[in-house]
Amino acid sequence: MGAPETEADPAVLEPAVVDWLAIDWGTSNLRAWAMTGAGEVLACRASEKGMGRLAPGEYPGVLSELIRGWTPRDPGRPLPVLICGMAGARQGWCEAPYLPVPTAPLGTGAVTPPDAPAGLAVRILPGLCQRAPRDEVMRGEETQIAGALARDPGFDGTICLPGTHCKWASVAGGAVTGFQSFLTGELFELLATRSVLRHGLAGAGEDPAAFDAAFGAAVGESLAEPGALPAGLFGIRAAGLLDGLAPDAGAGRLSGLLIGSELAACRPRWQDRPLVVIGAGRLSDLYAAALARAGAAEPKRLHATEATLAGLRAARALMELE
Amino acid sequence: MGAPETEADPAVLEPAVVDWLAIDWGTSNLRAWAMTGAGEVLACRASEKGMGRLAPGEYPGVLSELIRGWTPRDPGRPLPVLICGMAGARQGWCEAPYLPVPTAPLGTGAVTPPDAPAGLAVRILPGLCQRAPRDEVMRGEETQIAGALARDPGFDGTICLPGTHCKWASVAGGAVTGFQSFLTGELFELLATRSVLRHGLAGAGEDPAAFDAAFGAAVGESLAEPGALPAGLFGIRAAGLLDGLAPDAGAGRLSGLLIGSELAACRPRWQDRPLVVIGAGRLSDLYAAALARAGAAEPKRLHATEATLAGLRAARALMELE
Repeated sequence: MGAPETEADPAVLEPAVVDWLAIDWGTSNLRAWAMTGAGEVLACRASEKGMGRLAPGEYPGVLSELIRGWTPRDPGRPLPVLICGMAGARQGWCEAPYLPVPTAPLGTGAVTPPDAPAGLAVRILPGLCQRAPRDEVMRGEETQIAGALARDPGFDGTICLPGTHCKWASVAGGAVTGFQSFLTGELFELLATRSVLRHGLAGAGEDPAAFDAAFGAAVGESLAEPGALPAGLFGIRAAGLLDGLAPDAGAGRLSGLLIGSELAACRPRWQDRPLVVIGAGRLSDLYAAALARAGAAEPKRLHATEATLAGLRAARALMELE
Repeated sequence: MGAPETEADPAVLEPAVVDWLAIDWGTSNLRAWAMTGAGEVLACRASEKGMGRLAPGEYPGVLSELIRGWTPRDPGRPLPVLICGMAGARQGWCEAPYLPVPTAPLGTGAVTPPDAPAGLAVRILPGLCQRAPRDEVMRGEETQIAGALARDPGFDGTICLPGTHCKWASVAGGAVTGFQSFLTGELFELLATRSVLRHGLAGAGEDPAAFDAAFGAAVGESLAEPGALPAGLFGIRAAGLLDGLAPDAGAGRLSGLLIGSELAACRPRWQDRPLVVIGAGRLSDLYAAALARAGAAEPKRLHATEATLAGLRAARALMELE
């Protein structure tokens, strides 16, 4: 299960006889998995043609191109294609609604784009929204949450999904009861690459130990002192000028101030609550490290792709019952 | 006093017989004032050739071009040219030191670039730095602070200088005793134009009343609740999607969350302290409005250019004593 993800290579199309397709159509990337009825992955293709790069009319062609060579087991029936993610956004392929919390992460509301390619039964899954106490939306993460719940249906706690816009979802009784979002990942990127801080952070990546030390200290500062983030940002530049603060220490400090201030702002979600962190790679490791520094219980870790696939399988199972 | 600032127009060079030149060489802009010995402004020229756009070797030519047609009253002596701002930065014309606080804002340490044009006695003023409790630097603002003190030498309080990187300087006995800097202006620009929030803020500027109402409410939230800024940023996007939050209300909310969190982080600087706000235009008005919302005493307002000129006059007076 889980063939390696490869870019679609027109010279080498692995013909695969599929029962349905699982698709994660994000802002930057598109991934498609050829699935058996039992939920096994036969093949995987990936492309950079995410929602952020496509006009609405381009989706059918991009999808057809990506899955070229994958043959339905039963050509007499439309091939079910389940899509989660930003393809269902207003600026995506076909807008899918938001289900308002509290709600199970999967439910009714999937939409079928009118220009879906012939032979494909395309369903784009809805996102989730919240109106009180704060307006919130998510699109794509609900499928990963569904994947986590498929493995642990009775989970009562918080699911954290780090990313460009980190989400913290409270879950009980199979439902998302509330959630909140942070711009932390995007803020880091903007500050590190486009603000005055970029001068001192260029070249970071060579000294993980320096990064981690600065990160942990900055998380601690943010948790102890609410104003640490706004008051501390310019100081990263000043320390570079006055004390020769090295790039990795600067990047670690910036990351720690940001993630620490996020944790400080959503304490009730993680303090004394069972935690799951769904993510892949360095960013999830940083959130786990920050939670450890904050004294939270050690979270269960789920790989992002596995969670997405488990969620799409669960969505498929629900649709087969319709 | 105070001729209107105009771009250098080669077709119309107002010949001016000058005693010295006052120059504010910032990151984005360069402004030069032709001055009499008594400190009156005869003429002013401006250009977009700020430090951010120049290589080190370009400064002499840019300066000469800008002041073409301005004739020294006494051609037998080098014309004094006093420069404040980022021309003295590491990536500027010629690096001037930082004077460490506590210090009078003007003192020793002015540097003369070795490639100054013939006939000009160029002095670039030092900036200020701080090492404890936090590393801090400023370059250019110290001259505006000196201008404020020239008008009110006994001032004991805080001077706030809004800008891309807002500074809050504590002043007593003619000296800057400490200061702190915030990235607030730059953060607003990055979030409003490059983050996910840009979608909902496009077109802001048409409804100042909506902006101001949202601004005031958001300042109040940030002052009351430390986590309001990180927790509230994504909500501006969500409110745009779910409730049709209008661009001006969104921009006002973003600005209020940012400036409010800055005030929350530097409360000891403005709470129960005499205040001066040095700035020009909308941004200074926003800081003054935020301070009012926070219950601070009404600040005295100084126009940024007047403060810069008063500071350069004070620097000239000190140098004449040397």
